Amino acid sequence: MILVSNSQIKLITSLQHKKYRNKLELFVAEGPKVINELITAKLQLHSLYSTLDGLFKNESVQIISEKELSKISSLKNANNSLAVFKIPNKKTYVENGITVVLDSIQDPGNLGTIIRLCDWFDVKNIICSLNTVDCFNPKVIQATMGSIVRVNIMYTVIEEFLAKSKFPVYVGAMDGSNIYKENLPDKAIIVVGNEANGVSTKIMNLANNKIAIPQFGVNQRTESLNVATATAILLSEFKRITVS
Amino acid sequence: MILVSNSQIKLITSLQHKKYRNKLELFVAEGPKVINELITAKLQLHSLYSTLDGLFKNESVQIISEKELSKISSLKNANNSLAVFKIPNKKTYVENGITVVLDSIQDPGNLGTIIRLCDWFDVKNIICSLNTVDCFNPKVIQATMGSIVRVNIMYTVIEEFLAKSKFPVYVGAMDGSNIYKENLPDKAIIVVGNEANGVSTKIMNLANNKIAIPQFGVNQRTESLNVATATAILLSEFKRITVS
Repeated sequence: MILVSNSQIKLITSLQHKKYRNKLELFVAEGPKVINELITAKLQLHSLYSTLDGLFKNESVQIISEKELSKISSLKNANNSLAVFKIPNKKTYVENGITVVLDSIQDPGNLGTIIRLCDWFDVKNIICSLNTVDCFNPKVIQATMGSIVRVNIMYTVIEEFLAKSKFPVYVGAMDGSNIYKENLPDKAIIVVGNEANGVSTKIMNLANNKIAIPQFGVNQRTESLNVATATAILLSEFKRITVS
Repeated sequence: MILVSNSQIKLITSLQHKKYRNKLELFVAEGPKVINELITAKLQLHSLYSTLDGLFKNESVQIISEKELSKISSLKNANNSLAVFKIPNKKTYVENGITVVLDSIQDPGNLGTIIRLCDWFDVKNIICSLNTVDCFNPKVIQATMGSIVRVNIMYTVIEEFLAKSKFPVYVGAMDGSNIYKENLPDKAIIVVGNEANGVSTKIMNLANNKIAIPQFGVNQRTESLNVATATAILLSEFKRITVS
């Protein structure tokens, strides 16, 4: 059994921090399913560790103990394998179809779910505000289930992005018009916002349309919808019109 | 400062287990937002602890230290307050509108999100298979954001429930027909299934209709939709027809 060296442990655990991911241009993926998805997508593998033999074909794997894995894993319950990949080169943005813009999304699980949703609904581009959680955060990678390689994710000053966009901008807002009654275009920018505060006022002011998912029933006491859930419904509404 | 006694600690931590919740007919809620929602809904309060004074009006609160709170909390980062409530009496099931049936949902966050969604979409009843995660699990309570008091949740043998239902049964299935092309009724049973395996074959055989959310784009490689996300889209489709 090959031991994981202290310098390897130091490298891998440093990648839990955005600063080191950016500096080293590396990120961590955990669990055989996600790792295999990223390998299939031809991401460049830096190193691969597993407690089990035979999970990864044609790849050089370092077999390690459960104890060693738990030292390098960021998960409470490590999932038998961990890989370090090179962060892929950024693609250029081509305005097309639906683009999702994220204003200050903080929860890694929410970002991961939104990336997976965009992949499902064939949304090619996600534009994130600079304070949105980093998409190479290990928990985001986990939640995307491999979708991260198929969606183009960019971090930028979203006010500048929206000001330049040629497509109409739709912002999710509690006081927006009923999405089920809107005639939605097949080319649009959809903006969703922070878990606690929604979309910020300055972004709201750049929108052409405010849209809302109405609450049903007599006693409307539900404490909002989770942002990933709301994004699911918005994307479904924008894409269902393209089904013939 | 009043100290939390060992017997109190023992009682509260025992409530992390379903066995003791059922035996004692008590459950735990954490965080001032959820606790206040449950108080407003007139749930019977058993005891209330907080590191801060003045968060709860008209209630007797035991002020405790951060350290004491972390001893009784089930959260990694305890959220200043913890309450013990009496489990409310079960309501009787009245078949009406949309009912959601859950087949073996395991993740507390998913169940919590689905409860919150049902509240939003005015779904009165959720029927859970006996092996679905318990709705009084602290992580479920956390994710429901108070919606748990407004939705009737029952655990039963779902095969028997479905066999008796007068409304048409729709089951979410990868090979189902395109939901966007269906004429959906306003009275129906929607069944969604386990995170890894979907709805079980024996339940599938009891369905009148299999429905699917289609994947978009040319390269359809997305690893399914999360069950809570899929439920959001299904509920949106069933309820949007009622918007005039």
